[in-house]
Amino acid sequence: MNIKPLADRVLVEPAEAEEKTASGIIIPDTAKEKPQRGKIVAVGNGKKDEPLTVQAGDQVLYGKYAGTEITVEGKEYLIMREADIFAIV
Amino acid sequence: MNIKPLADRVLVEPAEAEEKTASGIIIPDTAKEKPQRGKIVAVGNGKKDEPLTVQAGDQVLYGKYAGTEITVEGKEYLIMREADIFAIV
Amino acid sequence: MNIKPLADRVLVEPAEAEEKTASGIIIPDTAKEKPQRGKIVAVGNGKKDEPLTVQAGDQVLYGKYAGTEITVEGKEYLIMREADIFAIV
Amino acid sequence: MNIKPLADRVLVEPAEAEEKTASGIIIPDTAKEKPQRGKIVAVGNGKKDEPLTVQAGDQVLYGKYAGTEITVEGKEYLIMREADIFAIV
Amino acid sequence: MNIKPLADRVLVEPAEAEEKTASGIIIPDTAKEKPQRGKIVAVGNGKKDEPLTVQAGDQVLYGKYAGTEITVEGKEYLIMREADIFAIV
Amino acid sequence: MNIKPLADRVLVEPAEAEEKTASGIIIPDTAKEKPQRGKIVAVGNGKKDEPLTVQAGDQVLYGKYAGTEITVEGKEYLIMREADIFAIV
Amino acid sequence: MNIKPLADRVLVEPAEAEEKTASGIIIPDTAKEKPQRGKIVAVGNGKKDEPLTVQAGDQVLYGKYAGTEITVEGKEYLIMREADIFAIV
Repeated sequence: MNIKPLADRVLVEPAEAEEKTASGIIIPDTAKEKPQRGKIVAVGNGKKDEPLTVQAGDQVLYGKYAGTEITVEGKEYLIMREADIFAIV
Repeated sequence: MNIKPLADRVLVEPAEAEEKTASGIIIPDTAKEKPQRGKIVAVGNGKKDEPLTVQAGDQVLYGKYAGTEITVEGKEYLIMREADIFAIV
Repeated sequence: MNIKPLADRVLVEPAEAEEKTASGIIIPDTAKEKPQRGKIVAVGNGKKDEPLTVQAGDQVLYGKYAGTEITVEGKEYLIMREADIFAIV
Repeated sequence: MNIKPLADRVLVEPAEAEEKTASGIIIPDTAKEKPQRGKIVAVGNGKKDEPLTVQAGDQVLYGKYAGTEITVEGKEYLIMREADIFAIV
Repeated sequence: MNIKPLADRVLVEPAEAEEKTASGIIIPDTAKEKPQRGKIVAVGNGKKDEPLTVQAGDQVLYGKYAGTEITVEGKEYLIMREADIFAIV
Repeated sequence: MNIKPLADRVLVEPAEAEEKTASGIIIPDTAKEKPQRGKIVAVGNGKKDEPLTVQAGDQVLYGKYAGTEITVEGKEYLIMREADIFAIV
Repeated sequence: MNIKPLADRVLVEPAEAEEKTASGIIIPDTAKEKPQRGKIVAVGNGKKDEPLTVQAGDQVLYGKYAGTEITVEGKEYLIMREADIFAIV
């Protein structure tokens, strides 16, 4: 995949949502909570005086509604600003 | 075509929307999802201290509702700010 | 006409709205789409560190709802900020 | 009159609203369109790095809803920021 | 009275509202228009790079809804930012 | 009490609300007007270039809806930004 | 736990909500007031020119609705900006 996010944006591959609850019940597709964890796949060059902190490969936590879904080669990614990322895990 | 976008604006030629779904069903015109991919056709000179990153010819991804539709010589384009572009592909 | 727009404002003479559709139907007055194309008639001196880019005589494209209509010598003009102009054509 | 507007404010004496329409019909008082043209009567000293451009005596155009009406010695004036003025005529 | 407004705030003693209309009718208390004129009673030290322009004793004009009413020793004052003051009269 | 407000925040102990009106009527608890006067109990270190002006012990006036109520050792305080304080009295 | 908050964010472990009221009544789970007190667990590196003031281990007070809940290893935390923290206690 050859995507170069612009400025302070990063491309995130969301982690699979859990398909069972803690007590082992299988969750039907529509009830799955959207994952808040993902892997950085590509990063922009940052803004003029602010290079990015995260790098490709980092596991990150982000808000439930962060970013925009884009489909690349049939697979769903999120593109978001670095400021939408809470923490590296 | 002779259009010079101002400042941090770019002129984008949207890619054709897919006319079939993945499973081969033909989509009637009103149900087609607006494309989020396009080709940069012309770029502005940027703002005072920030030249633009994208260039004419770049394939870019942008948000579903980015930009303003303008019609040039009977053809639809989008004019948007570079900040509305997510990534170069 | 002797009008000097202030700061980053420009005075635009809107192009006549098309009075026929592409298929030759005459459009009654209230259905005409507001023109988005016009000619710069007068420009301000810009802001402190930002002289204007457009000049009197330039043909420009601008958003449908840009600017404020003012009537000068019985003729309608638009006065808008340069930032409301998308491109020079 | 001895009024000194503060900072980037100016005091404007609105031009009399037209009392006839173009076709000569006399307009009753409540239907008169608010004038958008007036004369600068007094100006402030501007902001720290931005002296004002307009001067007392300038004829100016401004938006329909610009400024605040104040009554000085029984006469109505508008006090507005210079940024509310579109052009000198 | 010993009040020191903070930063860019000033304490204003509003002028008495007119108790008669121009034609001599006495206005009952609830119909009186709020005064827009007052006297500066105390001023703050301004912000870092912006000392205040008005001084205690200045007669000023301000917007109808400017400031917050505070009661000091049984008397009503307005405390407002200098930016809410239109002009010195 | 050992509380250190952060940045430009201050901790205020609100003055007791008056329990009688001027004419001596005792006000039931729910009708008491919230006090707008209080005593600074603790102050932050200010922002980078802006040390605070108020100090612990200062009597201050503030807006009716300023700050957030917090309970420390069973007692109600308000924590607010210095910018919410109108004046030192 | 190995979480590194980004920029000016901190990870907070909320204090247990009181399970009894002052008068000793046990509060059912849904009526418990959300705690406003917690312990800093991890901090970011701050923004370019502003290192953080709080450190891991600090007991802090914060607004009722501050931060975003995240679940790490089955335990609930709050991730918030340092500006959402009122005071160190």
